Amino acid sequence: MMPILTDFSRENENPCPLTPIGTAYTDFKQKFGIPRQSGMIAEAKAVIVLNPEFNADSVRGLAEFSHVWVIFRFHQCARDGFSQLVRPPRLGGKIKKGVFATRSPHRPNFLGLSLMKLEKIETKDRVCIYLSGADLLDNTPVFDIKPYLPHLEAVAAAAGGFSDSSAEKLAIVWLPEAFAVKHRLPEQIQNLIEACVRQDPRPAHQNNSEKNYIFQLDKYEIQFFCREKTAFIFSVRKILQ
Amino acid sequence: MMPILTDFSRENENPCPLTPIGTAYTDFKQKFGIPRQSGMIAEAKAVIVLNPEFNADSVRGLAEFSHVWVIFRFHQCARDGFSQLVRPPRLGGKIKKGVFATRSPHRPNFLGLSLMKLEKIETKDRVCIYLSGADLLDNTPVFDIKPYLPHLEAVAAAAGGFSDSSAEKLAIVWLPEAFAVKHRLPEQIQNLIEACVRQDPRPAHQNNSEKNYIFQLDKYEIQFFCREKTAFIFSVRKILQ
Repeated sequence: MMPILTDFSRENENPCPLTPIGTAYTDFKQKFGIPRQSGMIAEAKAVIVLNPEFNADSVRGLAEFSHVWVIFRFHQCARDGFSQLVRPPRLGGKIKKGVFATRSPHRPNFLGLSLMKLEKIETKDRVCIYLSGADLLDNTPVFDIKPYLPHLEAVAAAAGGFSDSSAEKLAIVWLPEAFAVKHRLPEQIQNLIEACVRQDPRPAHQNNSEKNYIFQLDKYEIQFFCREKTAFIFSVRKILQ
Repeated sequence: MMPILTDFSRENENPCPLTPIGTAYTDFKQKFGIPRQSGMIAEAKAVIVLNPEFNADSVRGLAEFSHVWVIFRFHQCARDGFSQLVRPPRLGGKIKKGVFATRSPHRPNFLGLSLMKLEKIETKDRVCIYLSGADLLDNTPVFDIKPYLPHLEAVAAAAGGFSDSSAEKLAIVWLPEAFAVKHRLPEQIQNLIEACVRQDPRPAHQNNSEKNYIFQLDKYEIQFFCREKTAFIFSVRKILQ
């Protein structure tokens, strides 16, 4: 099977054009705060709207599956380029791993792979596929959707390398000004804010930083700071559009 | 989160060029006989040879993982095009499902996703990644390699839709002429021939056909026919090259 080294052809070095089949819409308006993997935060919703050339036929039978794979382009990452070594946040940002040993978005071809729970499919007008456990930036271009095959793809005994080390999570405190706003927010947004902050979205090299962080979820701008292993949410306000 | 329908942008309809990172070499010289999914036939080996711009750094730490995802282009399928409905072989080729509800290679963008076992990595000269459980045609262009994350991706309780129905397998009989050759073959090839024929590679609409089938594995050409649920291998010969 293994070819002689001098036999390697050059045929597989030419670009292939891929055309998005649709777009994923989410509450994540910037990269900061997005869950570091799919399937971690159930409150993180996505809806993929297929381009108009795809009709209800294209998803016939998909609702029999509970989970789907989405292959997408990491949005707003291509301009940053990639390198062969990356510093996974899981490892505190101090240890370098090969880009193909990580799920870093800064990778050749900027292809992402997310496993999400299938919630609902609507097929009137455009085909809309509702998902939870999302880790996608709003407006992400989607290249493919495939059913998850548990009899082949649920390999419980697989060795997960450095990804197995469970990340330490932050405790959450709502400070009075933010707390007063909290109960006027939709419950999904309350839960999503807590889940996104709890996973410690700070860049790994700022793990000890006490500075203020700001990010946007849906129409809300959230601010927090950290002391030790606690995040203090001190402001939540609706963005006027 | 869900945008108003008239808001859908057209930005995600433009092609993005993807460049292969390397090539997968396997024993599968034509589409007939390839396992219908990855992870089904352990004897099916692949080696991915990365293009020369990737060095040992790019796979540092990958050996900590037991399984990897490979995202690739279904080789020799693009010229056939795709349709929104396909007839999965699992369902006897009689029932149509949406292309996004299947793992059919005849899909928009012709992107494949295979989960394979990581056997070995070599990094002298070119980076070579040895895998088992392959379902790739020889010379397949590879776009990405990612580690499998069992703590998130092994969802044993997931609903597998129509893919769960276990396929009936064929019994194998080696007829005398082929049997005489069998024990001079490498053991991996003996096992691979049996495994590939056992899964019934005949097109679903030919499930009752008694005609002769011919296919190539590595340097060997294999011929068989079927009666009821038994496959009779009647010829195995080495191809002169």
